Amino acid sequence: MEYDSVLSILRAVKDGRVTPEDALASLRWQPFEDIGYAKIDHHRQLRHGIPEVIYGKGKTAGQIAGILGAMRDGGYASALITRLEAGKAEEVNSAVPITYYPIPEMGIFGELPPPGTQGVIVIAAAGTSDLSVAEEAAVTALALGNRVERLYDVGVAGLHRLLSKHNELMNARVIVAVAGMEGALATVIGGLVACPVIAVPTSVGYGANFGGVSALLSMLNSCAGNVSVVNIDNGFGAGYLAGIINKIGERAQ
Amino acid sequence: MEYDSVLSILRAVKDGRVTPEDALASLRWQPFEDIGYAKIDHHRQLRHGIPEVIYGKGKTAGQIAGILGAMRDGGYASALITRLEAGKAEEVNSAVPITYYPIPEMGIFGELPPPGTQGVIVIAAAGTSDLSVAEEAAVTALALGNRVERLYDVGVAGLHRLLSKHNELMNARVIVAVAGMEGALATVIGGLVACPVIAVPTSVGYGANFGGVSALLSMLNSCAGNVSVVNIDNGFGAGYLAGIINKIGERAQ
Amino acid sequence: MEYDSVLSILRAVKDGRVTPEDALASLRWQPFEDIGYAKIDHHRQLRHGIPEVIYGKGKTAGQIAGILGAMRDGGYASALITRLEAGKAEEVNSAVPITYYPIPEMGIFGELPPPGTQGVIVIAAAGTSDLSVAEEAAVTALALGNRVERLYDVGVAGLHRLLSKHNELMNARVIVAVAGMEGALATVIGGLVACPVIAVPTSVGYGANFGGVSALLSMLNSCAGNVSVVNIDNGFGAGYLAGIINKIGERAQ
Amino acid sequence: MEYDSVLSILRAVKDGRVTPEDALASLRWQPFEDIGYAKIDHHRQLRHGIPEVIYGKGKTAGQIAGILGAMRDGGYASALITRLEAGKAEEVNSAVPITYYPIPEMGIFGELPPPGTQGVIVIAAAGTSDLSVAEEAAVTALALGNRVERLYDVGVAGLHRLLSKHNELMNARVIVAVAGMEGALATVIGGLVACPVIAVPTSVGYGANFGGVSALLSMLNSCAGNVSVVNIDNGFGAGYLAGIINKIGERAQ
Amino acid sequence: MEYDSVLSILRAVKDGRVTPEDALASLRWQPFEDIGYAKIDHHRQLRHGIPEVIYGKGKTAGQIAGILGAMRDGGYASALITRLEAGKAEEVNSAVPITYYPIPEMGIFGELPPPGTQGVIVIAAAGTSDLSVAEEAAVTALALGNRVERLYDVGVAGLHRLLSKHNELMNARVIVAVAGMEGALATVIGGLVACPVIAVPTSVGYGANFGGVSALLSMLNSCAGNVSVVNIDNGFGAGYLAGIINKIGERAQ
Amino acid sequence: MEYDSVLSILRAVKDGRVTPEDALASLRWQPFEDIGYAKIDHHRQLRHGIPEVIYGKGKTAGQIAGILGAMRDGGYASALITRLEAGKAEEVNSAVPITYYPIPEMGIFGELPPPGTQGVIVIAAAGTSDLSVAEEAAVTALALGNRVERLYDVGVAGLHRLLSKHNELMNARVIVAVAGMEGALATVIGGLVACPVIAVPTSVGYGANFGGVSALLSMLNSCAGNVSVVNIDNGFGAGYLAGIINKIGERAQ
Amino acid sequence: MEYDSVLSILRAVKDGRVTPEDALASLRWQPFEDIGYAKIDHHRQLRHGIPEVIYGKGKTAGQIAGILGAMRDGGYASALITRLEAGKAEEVNSAVPITYYPIPEMGIFGELPPPGTQGVIVIAAAGTSDLSVAEEAAVTALALGNRVERLYDVGVAGLHRLLSKHNELMNARVIVAVAGMEGALATVIGGLVACPVIAVPTSVGYGANFGGVSALLSMLNSCAGNVSVVNIDNGFGAGYLAGIINKIGERAQ
Amino acid sequence: MEYDSVLSILRAVKDGRVTPEDALASLRWQPFEDIGYAKIDHHRQLRHGIPEVIYGKGKTAGQIAGILGAMRDGGYASALITRLEAGKAEEVNSAVPITYYPIPEMGIFGELPPPGTQGVIVIAAAGTSDLSVAEEAAVTALALGNRVERLYDVGVAGLHRLLSKHNELMNARVIVAVAGMEGALATVIGGLVACPVIAVPTSVGYGANFGGVSALLSMLNSCAGNVSVVNIDNGFGAGYLAGIINKIGERAQ
Repeated sequence: MEYDSVLSILRAVKDGRVTPEDALASLRWQPFEDIGYAKIDHHRQLRHGIPEVIYGKGKTAGQIAGILGAMRDGGYASALITRLEAGKAEEVNSAVPITYYPIPEMGIFGELPPPGTQGVIVIAAAGTSDLSVAEEAAVTALALGNRVERLYDVGVAGLHRLLSKHNELMNARVIVAVAGMEGALATVIGGLVACPVIAVPTSVGYGANFGGVSALLSMLNSCAGNVSVVNIDNGFGAGYLAGIINKIGERAQ
Repeated sequence: MEYDSVLSILRAVKDGRVTPEDALASLRWQPFEDIGYAKIDHHRQLRHGIPEVIYGKGKTAGQIAGILGAMRDGGYASALITRLEAGKAEEVNSAVPITYYPIPEMGIFGELPPPGTQGVIVIAAAGTSDLSVAEEAAVTALALGNRVERLYDVGVAGLHRLLSKHNELMNARVIVAVAGMEGALATVIGGLVACPVIAVPTSVGYGANFGGVSALLSMLNSCAGNVSVVNIDNGFGAGYLAGIINKIGERAQ
Repeated sequence: MEYDSVLSILRAVKDGRVTPEDALASLRWQPFEDIGYAKIDHHRQLRHGIPEVIYGKGKTAGQIAGILGAMRDGGYASALITRLEAGKAEEVNSAVPITYYPIPEMGIFGELPPPGTQGVIVIAAAGTSDLSVAEEAAVTALALGNRVERLYDVGVAGLHRLLSKHNELMNARVIVAVAGMEGALATVIGGLVACPVIAVPTSVGYGANFGGVSALLSMLNSCAGNVSVVNIDNGFGAGYLAGIINKIGERAQ
Repeated sequence: MEYDSVLSILRAVKDGRVTPEDALASLRWQPFEDIGYAKIDHHRQLRHGIPEVIYGKGKTAGQIAGILGAMRDGGYASALITRLEAGKAEEVNSAVPITYYPIPEMGIFGELPPPGTQGVIVIAAAGTSDLSVAEEAAVTALALGNRVERLYDVGVAGLHRLLSKHNELMNARVIVAVAGMEGALATVIGGLVACPVIAVPTSVGYGANFGGVSALLSMLNSCAGNVSVVNIDNGFGAGYLAGIINKIGERAQ
Repeated sequence: MEYDSVLSILRAVKDGRVTPEDALASLRWQPFEDIGYAKIDHHRQLRHGIPEVIYGKGKTAGQIAGILGAMRDGGYASALITRLEAGKAEEVNSAVPITYYPIPEMGIFGELPPPGTQGVIVIAAAGTSDLSVAEEAAVTALALGNRVERLYDVGVAGLHRLLSKHNELMNARVIVAVAGMEGALATVIGGLVACPVIAVPTSVGYGANFGGVSALLSMLNSCAGNVSVVNIDNGFGAGYLAGIINKIGERAQ
Repeated sequence: MEYDSVLSILRAVKDGRVTPEDALASLRWQPFEDIGYAKIDHHRQLRHGIPEVIYGKGKTAGQIAGILGAMRDGGYASALITRLEAGKAEEVNSAVPITYYPIPEMGIFGELPPPGTQGVIVIAAAGTSDLSVAEEAAVTALALGNRVERLYDVGVAGLHRLLSKHNELMNARVIVAVAGMEGALATVIGGLVACPVIAVPTSVGYGANFGGVSALLSMLNSCAGNVSVVNIDNGFGAGYLAGIINKIGERAQ
Repeated sequence: MEYDSVLSILRAVKDGRVTPEDALASLRWQPFEDIGYAKIDHHRQLRHGIPEVIYGKGKTAGQIAGILGAMRDGGYASALITRLEAGKAEEVNSAVPITYYPIPEMGIFGELPPPGTQGVIVIAAAGTSDLSVAEEAAVTALALGNRVERLYDVGVAGLHRLLSKHNELMNARVIVAVAGMEGALATVIGGLVACPVIAVPTSVGYGANFGGVSALLSMLNSCAGNVSVVNIDNGFGAGYLAGIINKIGERAQ
Repeated sequence: MEYDSVLSILRAVKDGRVTPEDALASLRWQPFEDIGYAKIDHHRQLRHGIPEVIYGKGKTAGQIAGILGAMRDGGYASALITRLEAGKAEEVNSAVPITYYPIPEMGIFGELPPPGTQGVIVIAAAGTSDLSVAEEAAVTALALGNRVERLYDVGVAGLHRLLSKHNELMNARVIVAVAGMEGALATVIGGLVACPVIAVPTSVGYGANFGGVSALLSMLNSCAGNVSVVNIDNGFGAGYLAGIINKIGERAQ
């Protein structure tokens, strides 16, 4: 498609409708809108077929509302805001209506796509303390139009809890494994299933967990071959990636 | 299926064909063969639909040949041996015929599945020194029956080399990005495409690369949302994961 | 010049105008003023041709005002105060007037030199969150009498944003590249241009960014040969260094 | 007992059989023999009831033989030599006869105690590459007179292999869990059993295993409460500790 | 026992009292109760013979009270709550009565078992600042029905304080050594006694103690063979492990 | 002397004035007083000839006052309290009078010894922010009866400031060099003088100073042979050590 | 210029000399030659005005000779090969003549530009062991047509050696400071001069230098504002950067 | 004295015996000889009263012999060569006679000063493997004219071995404590004695000793106030420092 538009310009040059100088300018056209403190990429949604994402931390409620406003005006259907504290969310909401999820501290603007009819993403979390990261993954995957099944509190120190969910694991098209401390959940699940497992180390723990390093290293060194890893506490990234992997199956049909 | 066989046992108990005591023993049946120094998992191939994988490092040629022999006798169609030095490969080959790939130091036993007709895995590597890791990913993906396209020497310090391959990147169903040093390739590709990117940090570099830590951290902190990471120099893991992700599309059809 | 003054002293000794004992004392003269808690280097401005710089963090408003007062009395034209919180800045200002820049938390005392007519320093920043560090570099470079062009929110995950600024990058005499997370911006810019690039890793990010280590290592391992690095969040150092590099061109004319 | 001997000395003083000055000397008696390059602790065996242990690495064959000779002359029943390479072992053996175990590179001098009749120590190892560390633990525990059961190649990526050994695990009085890479074995076993688990991280793996740090951190952060950890590759320490824990049960009877 | 119940089911199938389909369902029965945010393992107490443990940090008072309520209804005799702040403890107490220990911040629900008549656990702590961790170990060991002797402020920089407690150390069946800073206490005690020593590094110290890493590494590298290590500040784990090791002696009788 | 007292006891046994049993008890006498939360070492002052030191951090004002009270009752001439916040100091002072030094946050109880007449300790500090650590060293050295000369704000980035103090440096018997950031002060001074230099890294700085690690490593790797290092921010240790080194000269006279 | 050529193409389209379709192909032209294992960037030399650089490590002599041959055929005037061992250099030379520098292990192909008439780069090195890194910087800077002055063995532990070279330092346009161990040289020089200082940490040292980390951190935390840092042992990068900074002065004239 | 010589020059200027221009040159006289690859500091011996030291590692035998030759010609009485392998030592010896010590790999050129009559330096080492580092300290201290007493194999895991040497420890003027693994020796000795203790961490150990980091951190965090630390394996530095501290007592007499 992009090549078509370049071709159109070139044909307009041929036909004399556009001068070479103007064509040159057009070819250098910027596909985003500059609102001063942030550049909104109007083509991203088209190119990637997914909602725009705003990293809320470090931005003021005013800035976030401003970006959302520009998006709305630009015809965006939906947007995700991550790491958005409750107080800030309320402020944003008074300017541009959003739906707020307090546990993963996320906001959603606009209409979400309906969940696909095929392919389930399982979000497995080791402990109660890993919940907010797991929910960040779950809400993200839902926002991308995926079906999601949550398996929480299935840490490997009580293996029967995990094994009792064997069916759910085997039916998943992709699994997100969320764990802090020793992070063994990802490897154990990876060994049980044949589908891709996205491991999310969390900073849950204390002492020699070094803010999530123990789980991170554990997951990177997994002896299961179907495990890949995202950053510590990066529930969003895992949910996003799970979403687009699951969509491969959907689109292929 | 597994439940079917359990049900069969239970029905045999009901019918009196099997005593409860024997049924108990059957239910505790071990689905692997013990050859002394290693347990071969005869069900893995069925369950996962992929060749068995042997990690060659730290095993003698005799041990590897022994494992392959047991597999052959067990009716395995194929197997992959990773981290297999040339000398050891020759020894193995004289006992059990294998095909050897010297650059990624891999061996393959048996017939590989034909490449699927749909879905391309792009393996992109930043520099010439990253070649062996990239090839480990490529051969692994091929061995799993995938189509593979290699884009080598496309490091971001010469961005036009990467951008000239824009079409190949856009057409991929999943991309493996292999890079050492500053590891920026994964993020740059992640920003260009919408498909999943599996990042492989390599130990290529010196000084403050700390044996691959620089690339590893760079990739874990990618500001692109579609990037996940495997262990340093783990070409096999990336190729394997890319293969099963690509197959999601194939199977779904 | 310094040698001239030593020679003058020696000649005065020869002529009997100064005793050897007094000459010895003179030769040990201290070129700075001691105000108790800090030594002000009255010769620095002459020697280096640039404003004196005060690191505000860990000093009280009273101490800063005291140093500025001594400078004013010593005939200093200007001074920069870095890491100066808004509240403290107000206190300082009530004692010694300063101009305050809230985003980089900097204060300037006295008259700044007019910007040079040649040579542009480009300050490129990856994300909105890197703004305060980028502005520290920008204000510092301006305070040294340089022309500055800001390119903000040009992170490599949206490469077209950076490439659309190709002209500005090519025209720079020196570039400051500010980025957190995976810090890839420095390498990508380094590969596009031929001029020196000063990379500033920022602590922006979370988890395995380890307070800026990911970006720091990424930049130190850049595969572009024209990149050097300053400390994490050290916008001042980068702006200062960019300023004196740019002045090499100016002075040479 | 030690107090008894002090009391005897004091009583001899009282009775005039020993002068106060000689008593003082006796009280300062050194309970070890100095052979120049090493001090042999003749009381250790009595006090601790276990063979003396010699760390072979960094000592010459001559030094080791010298220490063993002095022990034999001092009436020692047995001694263990760890980290003893095959070549050095042969040299030692020609001077003082020892039994050599090539896989854990250990030597044993003298008669070992017969294995106790009660209490089994299970040594579980994740992979074939962890064998030498596991055997160091096994041989050490045996040398201390314990019954040992080995469960090798039971890594958690193939969970059924471990679960098929459920009975052996449940019957153990203490378990040594040996694993490299992600080190999850310790936690999974810890969750299955009620007895103490001594975890031994190994340096097996590559890349981000950092020579065993990944397994070490994983084990230190185990969410199972009955797991403690020894140094990387320290099979000896684990076997030793398992042995004295197991003996608590034996002695108590 | 578990096998007995499986056998019963199988026998009921044989006798026609249970259909194979129902048996299959029974065999997949989940031995825990799901109360939404946490799964309570009703079999753990039976299997392990010890109170259930709740990690209080990161759970609300309401969640903790809920878990305790479900336990009480499920017939649990007792439970331990660790890392429970005073304020939260008060809230919990108003819903479900608990006994609260403010120094180690622990709560106990229900009746504790009476202390065993044999086998003493010594809890040795280096400094006053290590007290809360030492008390976490002590209260845990007591809650498991052990006899405990505390030796506090016996750091090795004043060796005579430790040596004056020689008798207490020699009489212990297992010792917990708690120390921060250079963590030498574990090694010095390990060399004095023949029983197992569980070392607990604490985060006490500053600068290059790196939050407990100095003591942790010191303890992992102990040149005494009878020392194993738990996580930094993990008094609970050490007390728990000491308790079950001590019980080996008791049960054996 | 200690041996004399043992001899006296033994002689009393010989003379029948003391029974062997009582003698045994005496020989096990504890040379410290136990006040519950801390053991006061009444012999330390005699043995070491220096004031007792109390580490204030992590102790309540009540505990500190209690320890001081016991000391006073035990006849102690003086004591030092380090890391004592102003508020707590006030509380302590109302119970037991102390002199408080706010910058290094230290308190002194009792009469300090008069400064020696010979041997000067120079305390050199790189920047204004290193002041509190430098003062901790200075006050400690003074409290031990040493003469102290302070050279502050002599960081090596303005080398002439340091060189102008050449005489003071050359006249020192021992030097304490306090510096954060790149910590180069210790090496530069070490190269200028022949006396021992005790280096104190401080946590002053940001980013890649990693809380003082940069200065610590710099000082440990000093290419000057007369430099040794204490913990980050450990002004007390440096002042204490400088004091006892300086006293070697004094005592020798 | 590049824009000119695009404009030419567009004008040819307008004139009908080129079809839009062919223009589109031209606009996607790849500005490099693919020789299989490496892509040679024929435009780099033009764009950057400097010799092409080949990183020799990890490439065979045959590969290097192949790249040089393609360059020669492509009309390249000169090329630099870094990290080229003597043996490999000989092999390369027999295929394509190069000049070899054994200490920095570099090779140069073709004619170097004559040194500029203005602007001196000073290469200062702390110790004899830093020589090879310093020479890598020196030869690189010379190869780019710069004047170079070497100041070797001027480490700060013997400050007078450095200070005796005060004039040479003051006359430099840019300085490269090479040091291992505590790396203080960069800061001391940075404080003496007003020009940019490029610091190169080396891996020289042992123990807590951690392969160059001590010098690296020291330099990153320099309290001198005109210091930036390159990777450990990266003499090439420093020489390259110094060269292009020095050229700013030359070009500006 | 240096000031005297400057004064002499100034007086000569006054008297007309020296022109101001010549005086200026004299004042800038370089107090070292340049022999191409190293600068020999002829004044160091005078200034510091101790032998010159040559770091042998990384220098060829020819370079070392050259430096020694220049020293001999320059009238040096003696010199120390550290880290000198046996083979290289032989080569050096054939050119310039040296005495060689194989265990610490040190060479001595010229006549050593006779040992002082007062003040003993105790070198205490934990294990046999720490011997070479301990001997480096011992030989260095001897070469500086000190009396040395060696206490080897006194590691804290066998505390009685150390305590049996109580007298020797108490009589020392300064102690060097050499230990690897958990490095507890320094703290235990520090608590026993009142004199300065210089701690030398060694790289002895494996796994989580991280090449000496465990002992280094242990020693830096010593809870004994009289301990300072040098680099890992830096026996030379410790012996040197102990020597000059011991001489303080000698000189003072």
